[in-house]
Amino acid sequence: MKEPIFDVAQLAHVEIYTPKPDATLWFFKELLGMEETCREGQSVYLRAYEDFYHHTLKITERDRPGLGHVAWRTSSPQALQRRVEALQACGAGRGWIDGDLGHGPAFQFVTPDGHPMELLWEVEYYEAPPEKQTALKNRPQKRPITGVPVRRLDHVNLLCSDPTPNKEFMMEQLGFRLREHIILSDGSEAGAWLSVSPLVHELACMRDRTGSKGRLHHICYWYGYPQHLSDIADLFAENDITIEAGPGKHGISQAYFMYVFEPGGNRVELFGDAGYLIFDPDWKPVTWREEELDKGIIWFGSPLPAEYFLYGTPAPEEEAAD
Amino acid sequence: MKEPIFDVAQLAHVEIYTPKPDATLWFFKELLGMEETCREGQSVYLRAYEDFYHHTLKITERDRPGLGHVAWRTSSPQALQRRVEALQACGAGRGWIDGDLGHGPAFQFVTPDGHPMELLWEVEYYEAPPEKQTALKNRPQKRPITGVPVRRLDHVNLLCSDPTPNKEFMMEQLGFRLREHIILSDGSEAGAWLSVSPLVHELACMRDRTGSKGRLHHICYWYGYPQHLSDIADLFAENDITIEAGPGKHGISQAYFMYVFEPGGNRVELFGDAGYLIFDPDWKPVTWREEELDKGIIWFGSPLPAEYFLYGTPAPEEEAAD
Amino acid sequence: MKEPIFDVAQLAHVEIYTPKPDATLWFFKELLGMEETCREGQSVYLRAYEDFYHHTLKITERDRPGLGHVAWRTSSPQALQRRVEALQACGAGRGWIDGDLGHGPAFQFVTPDGHPMELLWEVEYYEAPPEKQTALKNRPQKRPITGVPVRRLDHVNLLCSDPTPNKEFMMEQLGFRLREHIILSDGSEAGAWLSVSPLVHELACMRDRTGSKGRLHHICYWYGYPQHLSDIADLFAENDITIEAGPGKHGISQAYFMYVFEPGGNRVELFGDAGYLIFDPDWKPVTWREEELDKGIIWFGSPLPAEYFLYGTPAPEEEAAD
Amino acid sequence: MKEPIFDVAQLAHVEIYTPKPDATLWFFKELLGMEETCREGQSVYLRAYEDFYHHTLKITERDRPGLGHVAWRTSSPQALQRRVEALQACGAGRGWIDGDLGHGPAFQFVTPDGHPMELLWEVEYYEAPPEKQTALKNRPQKRPITGVPVRRLDHVNLLCSDPTPNKEFMMEQLGFRLREHIILSDGSEAGAWLSVSPLVHELACMRDRTGSKGRLHHICYWYGYPQHLSDIADLFAENDITIEAGPGKHGISQAYFMYVFEPGGNRVELFGDAGYLIFDPDWKPVTWREEELDKGIIWFGSPLPAEYFLYGTPAPEEEAAD
Repeated sequence: MKEPIFDVAQLAHVEIYTPKPDATLWFFKELLGMEETCREGQSVYLRAYEDFYHHTLKITERDRPGLGHVAWRTSSPQALQRRVEALQACGAGRGWIDGDLGHGPAFQFVTPDGHPMELLWEVEYYEAPPEKQTALKNRPQKRPITGVPVRRLDHVNLLCSDPTPNKEFMMEQLGFRLREHIILSDGSEAGAWLSVSPLVHELACMRDRTGSKGRLHHICYWYGYPQHLSDIADLFAENDITIEAGPGKHGISQAYFMYVFEPGGNRVELFGDAGYLIFDPDWKPVTWREEELDKGIIWFGSPLPAEYFLYGTPAPEEEAAD
Repeated sequence: MKEPIFDVAQLAHVEIYTPKPDATLWFFKELLGMEETCREGQSVYLRAYEDFYHHTLKITERDRPGLGHVAWRTSSPQALQRRVEALQACGAGRGWIDGDLGHGPAFQFVTPDGHPMELLWEVEYYEAPPEKQTALKNRPQKRPITGVPVRRLDHVNLLCSDPTPNKEFMMEQLGFRLREHIILSDGSEAGAWLSVSPLVHELACMRDRTGSKGRLHHICYWYGYPQHLSDIADLFAENDITIEAGPGKHGISQAYFMYVFEPGGNRVELFGDAGYLIFDPDWKPVTWREEELDKGIIWFGSPLPAEYFLYGTPAPEEEAAD
Repeated sequence: MKEPIFDVAQLAHVEIYTPKPDATLWFFKELLGMEETCREGQSVYLRAYEDFYHHTLKITERDRPGLGHVAWRTSSPQALQRRVEALQACGAGRGWIDGDLGHGPAFQFVTPDGHPMELLWEVEYYEAPPEKQTALKNRPQKRPITGVPVRRLDHVNLLCSDPTPNKEFMMEQLGFRLREHIILSDGSEAGAWLSVSPLVHELACMRDRTGSKGRLHHICYWYGYPQHLSDIADLFAENDITIEAGPGKHGISQAYFMYVFEPGGNRVELFGDAGYLIFDPDWKPVTWREEELDKGIIWFGSPLPAEYFLYGTPAPEEEAAD
Repeated sequence: MKEPIFDVAQLAHVEIYTPKPDATLWFFKELLGMEETCREGQSVYLRAYEDFYHHTLKITERDRPGLGHVAWRTSSPQALQRRVEALQACGAGRGWIDGDLGHGPAFQFVTPDGHPMELLWEVEYYEAPPEKQTALKNRPQKRPITGVPVRRLDHVNLLCSDPTPNKEFMMEQLGFRLREHIILSDGSEAGAWLSVSPLVHELACMRDRTGSKGRLHHICYWYGYPQHLSDIADLFAENDITIEAGPGKHGISQAYFMYVFEPGGNRVELFGDAGYLIFDPDWKPVTWREEELDKGIIWFGSPLPAEYFLYGTPAPEEEAAD
């Protein structure tokens, strides 16, 4: 058996674009209870109250919604070096940047589908001001009293013109493990769920039925308590936020989920529990065949609407017009 | 920075002793909804319905309750070889056994305090019989309809005459990471929470105030849904099972917990959620000072009874009489 | 202000028909954890573990599913006498029966739509056998360890060719209060929710879009804990029980709900909480206009399927063929 | 059988005193998410977001914490007249007042222990300003986004030098039904739980072990979702609010509960669910004997601290010094 690569440790942060920054910020701050760390230029940096670093979400004003970039933290400086070499060797590397607010040097690269990503080691930890310091020493700040506050960034789901090469790239170059995937009757792969930890995924690659490249399907924040999905659904219903689907329970990942659209147009998922966790070091990926798929997507709760499989950000038309 | 060791992947199973095997089995099977895989000699092998292997709990009849052994699965065959060499080099190794029902060759060793442990790679996966097969392909069998069924083995908590050398042993020889610990005013360490995964602990070492060596404080199974702690508490109250403490929320690990005694006398913890998860590869251990400890042990819910800090299995008197 | 009538106290029990008694019993006993009190002839008498009387559900074998009858208990013997007189005076009365297993004399009557109902005072209380007796003195028996046990009968929902006269009949003859109703753009009433207690309804009358008379839409049992809807949904998914809709939250009644079909074909609703309760003695009924209806039916969660508004028991074709 | 009296419909509001009005208001508004309706003189009027009337809590500045008064709404104007006559006849009446902000004429009376109470019919309904209006038409305003908002006033618990005459007074003069009570080995009654609705109690009378008269044990607001007790406990732990006991489950009432002290010194209970509901019109009160009492007070969760049975507001010493 080939030994696994443990060089990537975690999803560090995600940048999204929004054409409606005020409304997007209201959504994440007032309803999801996220905290603003700072602002610079057209960007605002946010974190959930149990996120340990400077930020996990960078919201940047743009004319269209979509993905800015995805950043991964490695297991060590040495691991970063090894992965950079691999990325350079395979031609995906784009080169180093000095860093950004909240982190040090980052190596930029792109997936086969063109999603911008970064790899980094040095991060700035969030330090709570006195009034937010808590006696719960493993929590970086007090639990907020606004909205139904999310606890931490969970995962990102990317639309891919073809999931397979993207999956293989993440596995081969970065050491992601395949946890679950969907194989259609024609043999093609409709989606793949990948992780570097016991989470079923920090990254999903799903087929973009519009044939577009490099789009975002959703980002996901985590509650850990199923009731909070109902609580935030109540606030969404009160505040004219469109719930696309859920609360319900996925088959894939077994997580309690809900999908909504933030006012800027990006889809956001919320997880109500940890689903199941994979500690088996020799995990055999779960394959969902086309005829098994309904249960795989939704174990209980209503089926996903057709739009779920088409909508991503940015819209394909606009992209074409770029 | 020294790179982390990723050689141990997970807690594979635990063996406990019971002087009342029928009552102990009733507790685990009828109330916690666990499944019996098989029996051999004085032992019965059980698993929770989302445990993937042959068993996670081996219950062996003995005159006194206590710990049989703790088994860890490595990340690969190579990792097993490396750890065996380290254990042999430090003198903790006891040698190989051919295996047991449900797993292949295992290397036996002891902690400094004398807790018997095993390291193994080859495991037998549970295969559900047709009537227990489920359409939820990432679940090894149907959810049972008996009791309030636990989902998987979570962790083990060992009493140690001195936690520090045991903690250091697990870190140095096996690659465990220190997540949280308690430092008393005299500088001594009262407890340490260690893990090889994002869980805050698969292993805790707590000071045995009786001065005994090698005792068990508790094993823990996982629900993942806080309500299930109330549900099983209701069944415990109905069925004369003594709840020692909880439901409540720990500061350390942030988990929703409850402690009960199974009829054989061993303490069992139940976790209602995942607590917080540690993905930071450069985690700075959380240190709870004596004056901060109340919140660390119980974030909310009633304080633990004094007995919590004294009771373990087997009883120290009996041990002395051995 | 005219003083309210307090003569009807509660929904006492419901009788349903099933063409598949074994499967229907398996559903209610194994999955919903209900207890069988006794059997007689083609009928089996069941109760939830917190139902105080002999039974709340009588399941009778018949060639088609549907409603047997609905029984209400009055507030006193005098109240029974007053209501019988009112029913006789308005021509709805059918006369007295000696009683049934579990209750004394009952006065039979029919709604304008023809749903068979009974009014009674004398009931037999359930007495737990020793092994089911509990230290929780306000609970009639121990909480069962089978399935995800429901706690008590909550309400019944009847399809009516026209809800309005049925609503008026229940209000005028029996003292029900109108809590919420739906008024369509053409001025017709599509549904009415009525109660004799702070519950939003023990009885709903919804328009039967097939134009049939006297059909059953659903009966509902109560959990009181939202998580239990997810738990039983999991068991339903594992055991091939069709979930029609939910879990989700109704606007009307604000209750957490789920709809399923028991194997005999009757729709069963499960309530996860108490919704909101009405203590206001001068309650102004909530009127949902056609354009407000979506939120009224589903506050959050997916929309109900079209079948929800058509399916009832028995099927209209079969009835016509009778 | 004597017919029940249905003249009192509900607990309308409670007035409490506080020596620390700013801190008390912060507690109810920021943590419990209550809404301020208005202020007048030394009083602030609050309501939970699902309370339908002008207010359910009047907080009045005083040098000591304690009970201002308890107000009950009758079932009709006629019912008010009947009860006033009964109160006058038994000598408990104190006379009419013109009303207060939020309600019309009220008849004042005292319990045998001297707790001030009012009976009223005319109430002012809360009207939400446009920005708080909700599409959920049975909810008087949008769910707030501050704190963990309580939904409605549930009950009040009064300390009595002797519960029995107070219980009898409420039953005989006002039609309360006895639901549960505690009878000690010496035959004395240590507490009584009374209601005019299916709730197990809107009013409890517990023995004041200090021998004081007319003190308040606690007021209770209702969540309806067990998770919210954990959520608000988390906020209490973060914000230095002392949790006296819980979350846990009472035997009496079966409710999920938690007790805290608001900064002014009054004990506040929070209910996480509806407990069980009593629809039986011929309910036989549940009697808890001294030897059964532990399970009656706490079905699961830790025992109540000794202080629970002694502490009330105001403090007895201060009262003596009045």
